[in-house]
This record gives sequence, C-alpha cells and structure tokens, in this order.
Amino acid sequence: MKKPDYIFEYRMEVRDYECDLQGIVNNANYQHYTEHTRHMFLHRLGMSFAELHDRGTDAVVAEMNMRFKKPLRSDDEFVSRLAFAREGLRYVFYQDIFRLPDDVMAFSSRVDIVCLVGGRLGRCPELEEKIESFTRGEL
Amino acid sequence: MKKPDYIFEYRMEVRDYECDLQGIVNNANYQHYTEHTRHMFLHRLGMSFAELHDRGTDAVVAEMNMRFKKPLRSDDEFVSRLAFAREGLRYVFYQDIFRLPDDVMAFSSRVDIVCLVGGRLGRCPELEEKIESFTRGEL
Amino acid sequence: MKKPDYIFEYRMEVRDYECDLQGIVNNANYQHYTEHTRHMFLHRLGMSFAELHDRGTDAVVAEMNMRFKKPLRSDDEFVSRLAFAREGLRYVFYQDIFRLPDDVMAFSSRVDIVCLVGGRLGRCPELEEKIESFTRGEL
Amino acid sequence: MKKPDYIFEYRMEVRDYECDLQGIVNNANYQHYTEHTRHMFLHRLGMSFAELHDRGTDAVVAEMNMRFKKPLRSDDEFVSRLAFAREGLRYVFYQDIFRLPDDVMAFSSRVDIVCLVGGRLGRCPELEEKIESFTRGEL
Repeated sequence: MKKPDYIFEYRMEVRDYECDLQGIVNNANYQHYTEHTRHMFLHRLGMSFAELHDRGTDAVVAEMNMRFKKPLRSDDEFVSRLAFAREGLRYVFYQDIFRLPDDVMAFSSRVDIVCLVGGRLGRCPELEEKIESFTRGEL
Repeated sequence: MKKPDYIFEYRMEVRDYECDLQGIVNNANYQHYTEHTRHMFLHRLGMSFAELHDRGTDAVVAEMNMRFKKPLRSDDEFVSRLAFAREGLRYVFYQDIFRLPDDVMAFSSRVDIVCLVGGRLGRCPELEEKIESFTRGEL
Repeated sequence: MKKPDYIFEYRMEVRDYECDLQGIVNNANYQHYTEHTRHMFLHRLGMSFAELHDRGTDAVVAEMNMRFKKPLRSDDEFVSRLAFAREGLRYVFYQDIFRLPDDVMAFSSRVDIVCLVGGRLGRCPELEEKIESFTRGEL
Repeated sequence: MKKPDYIFEYRMEVRDYECDLQGIVNNANYQHYTEHTRHMFLHRLGMSFAELHDRGTDAVVAEMNMRFKKPLRSDDEFVSRLAFAREGLRYVFYQDIFRLPDDVMAFSSRVDIVCLVGGRLGRCPELEEKIESFTRGEL
C-alpha cells in the first residue's frame, strides 16, 4: 500500500537526558516521541485516550515497525509527522521524524493500533469520523 | 536525630540505558532505584501502595534530599538499603545505595513521605504497625 | 525464514516506575528490556559494545519490529529470550519476552543490527565467531 | 541565606509517558526537568557541559533537595525557573517549577553543583563570569 500524506506534525526538541553513552538519542525515546505525537494529534481532534477508555474503548498498540535512519543528538530540534490509514480493524499511523533545520529523516515507523471495545477487538467509529473530518479540513 | 539502622535491603544492577553521556548513571535513576526499593519493602510487609490507595490512603513523597557520592557505572551491581523513622506525621525513609562488591556508598538520601487520608494529611496506622512488627522480626 | 532456536535467556522483573497510566508497562520499556538482554548476551560472550567501539566497530540498530501480545504489569517477573541469525550484512536478533511463571508470550520482536566499521557498513567477524562458538557450547 | 531572584526561565510541557499509575508526573521527571533547564541556561550563556568537560572541568551535582508541592498532570504546561548563588566551592541553583496558566508552585528544589578540575574540587571562573555578565544584562 502506498503511504498516505502527512496530516499532522508536531515540533519537539531532544532533551539531554534522552541521550546515551554515544551522545545520541537512545532508541527507546523515538517510541516516546511518536506516542506523544499521537496524543497531541488526538487532542487536536478534541479527543483523548483517557476519555475513550472511560467510554469502554481502549486503543492499544498491537505492532510497531521502526527504522532508525540518522541519529538525533543532544540539542537537536525535530518535527514529528503523522499519516493515517485504516486497514480493516487496524488503525495505522505512519510516523516519521525529521531533524531540523535540514529536514533529514531521522526515524521512520508504522504503528498499528487496535481498539478493544469492552475487551473485544472492534472498531472505534468516533475516531474514524474525527480523523475524516480533520482530513477534510472541517476540524 | 541519629539515623536509625537499616532494616531492609534489595539488590539491583545498573542497566546500560540508565547511563548518560558520561557513562555514569543519570541522577534521576537513583530516585527510581529508591522508589523501587520502597515498593519491594512494602511487598515484604504484605502491603502495596495500590491497596492503600483503594482504602482511601495515599502515601506521597513530600520531600527528598539526595547526596551523590560516587557515580555508579554500566554493569555495576549494587545494594539499596533502607532505614525508617516516624517524625510526627512524616514517615522518613533513609535510603542509601552501595556499590558491589566493595560496598562503597554511591548515594545517600532521606525521603519524607506523608499520608493523605481522604485527601487530608493524616496517619497510616497499618503502615506503622506492619513496620513495627517487621522490625521486631515478627513478619 | 524460519525463526531459529533461542540461545540465551535473561530473567528480569517489572519495576513500578515503568508502568503507565493504565497500570501496564509502557511500550518503550520493552525496547529497554531487549537492549539490556543483548548487552547481557554480549557480556556472556566476553564482549561489550564499548570495546567494539574502541576498536572502530559500531553495532547499531537499523530496524526493529515489535508485536505487543499481552501487557506486563507491576511486579511481574519475566524471562527475555534471544535467538540469532546472520542475513548478509545484518545481524538479526529475535527477542521475545515471556511472563513468569505461566510463560505466556508478552512481547515478540526482531531486531536488525548492522556494523559500521570506520563509519562504513561492514561485517564484524569477532561477533560472528563468538556467537558460533557459543552456539556450539564452546564458550 | 535568602533565596536570590530568578534569572532564567524555560517553558515546557508534560509528556504523557512521564505520568505514572496515579496519572501524575513520576517524581524522577522533575529531576529531568531541572537538569534540562540548567542545560538550556548554559546554552543561553554560550556554554555547554560537554565543552567544559573537554577543557578538563566537570560540573557534577553533589546534592539536591526537592520539595514536591502540587503534582503536575498529563497535558500540563509549566515554567521552570532558576536562581543562582555561589557558596564557597558550591554553585547553588534554586530551581522551581510552576504550573501554567495559574502559576501554582508544583516543585521547589536546591541543586548544589561542584566543579572537578582535573579530578579535584575547584572553581570554574568561566562559569562565574558568564553568570555575572548575564545577571548584569550583558549577555
């Protein structure tokens, strides 16, 4: 499947304590960055995972594939971009990170999220509608 | 006040990702180590913070004083020791960390914990009794 | 390709501060667990990433694919298992995590590592030999 | 000693993964926040810890006293403020964190930093001069 266009981006900066022995960002922090970006995207849609949870729907990461391209370093600023596609019961977020100001791709990932509705795999119509409205520029 | 004797200890090891640019454990991890040690101590007493919370009592850290003596490094093993005293409404944990095998003190701290009972500062008789029993060797 | 047999395992426990809002281990920590397991495996071989680095070879994660099966929770103990295969210039570690004592698979991953020799993609004969000796039971 | 006036501030936001089981920021993250603030302050002065290190001077935290006032929560924005005083060979940073927009104090700390010059306790004239110039508005 062709990767869809980015629909959201969020700017962040490397914090020194995220760097490891080699002076580069420890790999696990890219997961934090993408997680935070998804949360900011949901806020932009006027939703939150906590709210969904209270109404009986849990959105959980089922699978994540990551490619580490170019390490970010202490003091780097970067932009985290997000694209979205639905594949059956999977909500797929393509999340890439680009170093600033040169826009070099530092990290590329695909995050597959599934919804558990009352504990069982299901769809989350609210999330789908909000993302569609957002993509059409209505939100 | 004289520092009381240690009543509990827990053995741990440095994990590589806890080290920073200088190859030494990032300071914030000592807080993690002491927190984990308190939780293991509570388990030893047959209690947990989650349980206390469910019965309306929250134990929270009000103050923490830390001295960084000798940095731990990648692959170091260490033992985390704990002493306890009650001072009015404060439950004071003295928590020190010693590098193994030479037993050099790496870190020393005093952690003041208070109990919020139904949101108000109060005592936690269950915690006091359990620690007393434990200190007398009855647990 | 068929996944090879596990050749190494390492026992760990969840530390409370690794759990997030839902009371389950935050996903990024599985990356930490697998990283720590690889380091312990290298130690078992009598090698370290620091040493390799000093001799001009850097082993870096190029790609990582993760499946989140069953969330680990506060106080869970688990065993982290590792299998190995070489595919051209890629050193592939299959790293799975099983909850104890019921041995349920919590997490499954494939980690592709490449070696940069003097900054260029290359092989790391020492790593290959050590792993072969280890697999034959000679180490 | 009276606490001096703040001379620097830095705005940050809570990232979801920094919150623990209770939905509040895990205590160890306040240490990260203050560390990052000091680094940003040094950058503002045109200095960095890495640079100092290369010239033989290591600035290390010897002691840190923290008071946890009001827990920050998921999505909170906050401002981290810094005051400075020299006490003999100790460089003292008073670092407080205020929740936005209501400016309630969430966290208060005193961080004592010492300089190791070629491994021995010493002064760091460059740091002192830069801070003095900055305080006089010359930087």
